[in-house]
Amino acid sequence: MDLKSYIRTIPDYPTQGVQFRDITTILEDSNAFRYCVDRLYQRYQNTAFDALAVIESRGFVFGSALAYLLHVPLLVIRKKGKLPGKTISANYKLEYGTSSLEVHVDALEDSDRVILIDDLIATGGTVCAAAELIRKLGGDPVECAVVIELVDLNGRENIAPLPLFSLVTFHEDET
Amino acid sequence: MDLKSYIRTIPDYPTQGVQFRDITTILEDSNAFRYCVDRLYQRYQNTAFDALAVIESRGFVFGSALAYLLHVPLLVIRKKGKLPGKTISANYKLEYGTSSLEVHVDALEDSDRVILIDDLIATGGTVCAAAELIRKLGGDPVECAVVIELVDLNGRENIAPLPLFSLVTFHEDET
Repeated sequence: MDLKSYIRTIPDYPTQGVQFRDITTILEDSNAFRYCVDRLYQRYQNTAFDALAVIESRGFVFGSALAYLLHVPLLVIRKKGKLPGKTISANYKLEYGTSSLEVHVDALEDSDRVILIDDLIATGGTVCAAAELIRKLGGDPVECAVVIELVDLNGRENIAPLPLFSLVTFHEDET
Repeated sequence: MDLKSYIRTIPDYPTQGVQFRDITTILEDSNAFRYCVDRLYQRYQNTAFDALAVIESRGFVFGSALAYLLHVPLLVIRKKGKLPGKTISANYKLEYGTSSLEVHVDALEDSDRVILIDDLIATGGTVCAAAELIRKLGGDPVECAVVIELVDLNGRENIAPLPLFSLVTFHEDET
């Protein structure tokens, strides 16, 4: 499947000069959505790991279907203030200012091997914060998987040594 | 399965006197999560419909796994300002003030039959706003399914004539 043809590019969103890669057009096509989940399933069906960490909120969409297929627990990583139990947090940089992610403190067992799922990696700031949270809980992040990798923003290098698996890549100027 | 035993109750969250029903403890148990998705699958596997509408963001978790199994398109209904394309919005009341939900204007075909998925129904304000968006797009909401129904808040009556399907019910004072 030519997955890239299902991704809509919205020019100048959210700011002038940015080409936004919109995955809702994948979700609206059940074959394209199932193709993404199946590619991730093929990647991890023979990997020994204990939990899938899904990053709010587009990561939830791909990760929960995958967790269903793989019979593994879901660890939800959310924006600040969204989780009702006791949490820990990690900050990450935005273009202007910072934001933070949170997890429940009791969400992992010690030494749990965790795969992270998000829809897209840009600079990798979100993934680094999520991996930091997993380590703080005593877990071991083993790989991060995304649908879209924006290769010019160096996310793959920035999250190293955590490996990255991506389904498609985009350059900044691709229309 | 005694699904209620997998739901954590957090007293006085987000405000004094509220018993918050936390579904992250379902997600952390793969059997419990799969049980929820399987119950929803059984409910809708023989229903003729065109799309699953999932409400941000806990609705994404249950709905996307279900959409995978049912081979149907996913329509994402998001909080204000999160969708990159052209949207329409609908307001709903919160305890203090109002909030709004949005959908992409091109997300449905005319007369599409749509099932709505969320994690929980309280007064039904969110579901009413989501159903309003579906109707504005020319679609036909046929049923709403949730994991948890807070029966004392009359969501079932408030969303009528849209039918409600829930996996478990809680009274306000249940601990």
